[in-house]
Amino acid sequence: MTITGKATTYSAPGSDLPNVLQQTTFVIDEAAIQPNDVVVKTLATPINPSDVAQIFGGYNDAVPSTRLGSDTTPQPLSVGGNEGVFKVIQIGSNVKNYEVGDVVIPKLPGFGTWRTHAVVDITQDSDLTPFIKVNDLTIDQAATISINPSTAYQLLHQFVKDWKSGDWIIQNAGNSQASKYLTQLAKLINVNVLSIVRDGKPQELYDELYELGATKVLSESEFLHPEFNIEDVTKGEGNVRLALNSIGGETVGGLVKGLSRNGVLATYGVLGGGKISYDGRIQLFKNISTRAYWLTANTKANPQSKVDTVEAVSKLFKEGKLKVAAYNKVKFDSTGDLKATILNTIGKSKSGKQVVIYE
Amino acid sequence: MTITGKATTYSAPGSDLPNVLQQTTFVIDEAAIQPNDVVVKTLATPINPSDVAQIFGGYNDAVPSTRLGSDTTPQPLSVGGNEGVFKVIQIGSNVKNYEVGDVVIPKLPGFGTWRTHAVVDITQDSDLTPFIKVNDLTIDQAATISINPSTAYQLLHQFVKDWKSGDWIIQNAGNSQASKYLTQLAKLINVNVLSIVRDGKPQELYDELYELGATKVLSESEFLHPEFNIEDVTKGEGNVRLALNSIGGETVGGLVKGLSRNGVLATYGVLGGGKISYDGRIQLFKNISTRAYWLTANTKANPQSKVDTVEAVSKLFKEGKLKVAAYNKVKFDSTGDLKATILNTIGKSKSGKQVVIYE
Repeated sequence: MTITGKATTYSAPGSDLPNVLQQTTFVIDEAAIQPNDVVVKTLATPINPSDVAQIFGGYNDAVPSTRLGSDTTPQPLSVGGNEGVFKVIQIGSNVKNYEVGDVVIPKLPGFGTWRTHAVVDITQDSDLTPFIKVNDLTIDQAATISINPSTAYQLLHQFVKDWKSGDWIIQNAGNSQASKYLTQLAKLINVNVLSIVRDGKPQELYDELYELGATKVLSESEFLHPEFNIEDVTKGEGNVRLALNSIGGETVGGLVKGLSRNGVLATYGVLGGGKISYDGRIQLFKNISTRAYWLTANTKANPQSKVDTVEAVSKLFKEGKLKVAAYNKVKFDSTGDLKATILNTIGKSKSGKQVVIYE
Repeated sequence: MTITGKATTYSAPGSDLPNVLQQTTFVIDEAAIQPNDVVVKTLATPINPSDVAQIFGGYNDAVPSTRLGSDTTPQPLSVGGNEGVFKVIQIGSNVKNYEVGDVVIPKLPGFGTWRTHAVVDITQDSDLTPFIKVNDLTIDQAATISINPSTAYQLLHQFVKDWKSGDWIIQNAGNSQASKYLTQLAKLINVNVLSIVRDGKPQELYDELYELGATKVLSESEFLHPEFNIEDVTKGEGNVRLALNSIGGETVGGLVKGLSRNGVLATYGVLGGGKISYDGRIQLFKNISTRAYWLTANTKANPQSKVDTVEAVSKLFKEGKLKVAAYNKVKFDSTGDLKATILNTIGKSKSGKQVVIYE
């Protein structure tokens, strides 16, 4: 029996996505599966901004020649996408660690998730292919656990190791998926969160963020008002130890100003252009540090850190302590045009998190 | 016998220096010296920008009520100045650690050095008064060892612990006193230095910096030219691990851009207004950190670190490995007007380092 798979691929980086992305079909001949191969079927792949940046080039190299089907001829193609959840549908005769039916996510970035199926040699490409099993999670939880909740978990614990009850975090882009997970995770350890959101957001968004555990939500204008003082929010109780910046721009100066002595500004995204600007006198007198955070770099440097993070987040999901931040589901059926679906879904991303569900 | 001393003092911070600063005279009655007192005569006091910032207020609190003479009545006055070299001219009957003739510098900031003499209880005010002995140094070396060479020494060693031969440091304000010491100290451990200086500096300055050990000196325009690439200087050999910023402003973006992966930007001064601005994408992709450095904070947190630093720098001076960066000497004789001399010397500071020599 053979499976005909589809993948959204590119052969060279570029920003003209309709021309850069290609629809590639491939064949998996089940009789030709090698002893160390695992065949997985895709269940869901979210669109992350970093996936698009990767195709533009210069951000996070995709792994070229990702094997598509059971034909092992080298294919100079990169498959788009870095996050997704897959079900094991066939294993080679030597495979011990996976069983048919296992639900898995890729351990490392660069797997190429925008495809209906993948054939993976679990020994030969050991750095690339090992999966993390997520059998105990719902598909909703597993589909997006790898990037946003994991980022939030590491941001919370990488720069401050000794959180005290009542401490504060301030963050811009307070309504991003990562910020929503950060808010929930901080609440679990009694750390307060001040989230800044763009002006003009509806009351429903404020309600949602408060529901997730935000201590205070302010618009950018309120936060950047010359008379705003961080103690208006903290009442002078608890130190503002961490400021999280995922966009750059105007709010960064306010984040640095809002930090307490010895505070850290961590930048983990540059979606707003990424300009960092602040008053060096504040840095000097309050001994502020600024740091870079990048999940991909952490994972490449120490893959086990990613496994540990997913396990920690999984535990919180399973205990009901962490809720999936709502996202929009875009259905794809195997007879459809995957490239068109991916392009269409990327286009929708500005209105919120999008996840392609493979039926 | 009595000594009549003079001090340049202020009772409240302010920026109108001619009105804020006062000339205070005081009397030391040698017969009234207490058993734990040490009387010192001032030999030299440099003007540091931080001294002036301190009088402006908000920077580094002066210690009020510094005792002036043998009259122990509390005096709600701050004496200006934080650095200087003194000779012990009299000791009380209980004093064991100092001898008449010892040459000393204050261990901690806030001593109040703009005065001809000081009477110090070496037990009661132990946090404030202990001196570091510098008997083996020349007065030229001792006069300014406490701030600029000590800052340079700590900057070199605080953020990078494992310098490798051929690594690089880049710094703005490359002709400041601290930068000149940094250049010499880096050269001693085979670390390269790229120093940026303002446009229009004369060839003599370039020659002086090269003579001190700079690997390369560039004007701001050359460094900030859009086509400038750090590898034009480094030839791709050695990592740019540390960027030193003492002014803020335009060059900061270039410093961050010039750093190699995992590099650190350390800000230790804000004389140019201190605006810090750079491209967050570079911070993210190269994992750049920015840090604050402040000698005073280090010294207050760990006074022994200052003693260790002065000892390390003293050793280099005595071995002839470190040269005093040239400064201008302003003579003051005991019949003169100390406040006028100090004001006049502050006014000259823009043209280079100034040190008042007490005759």
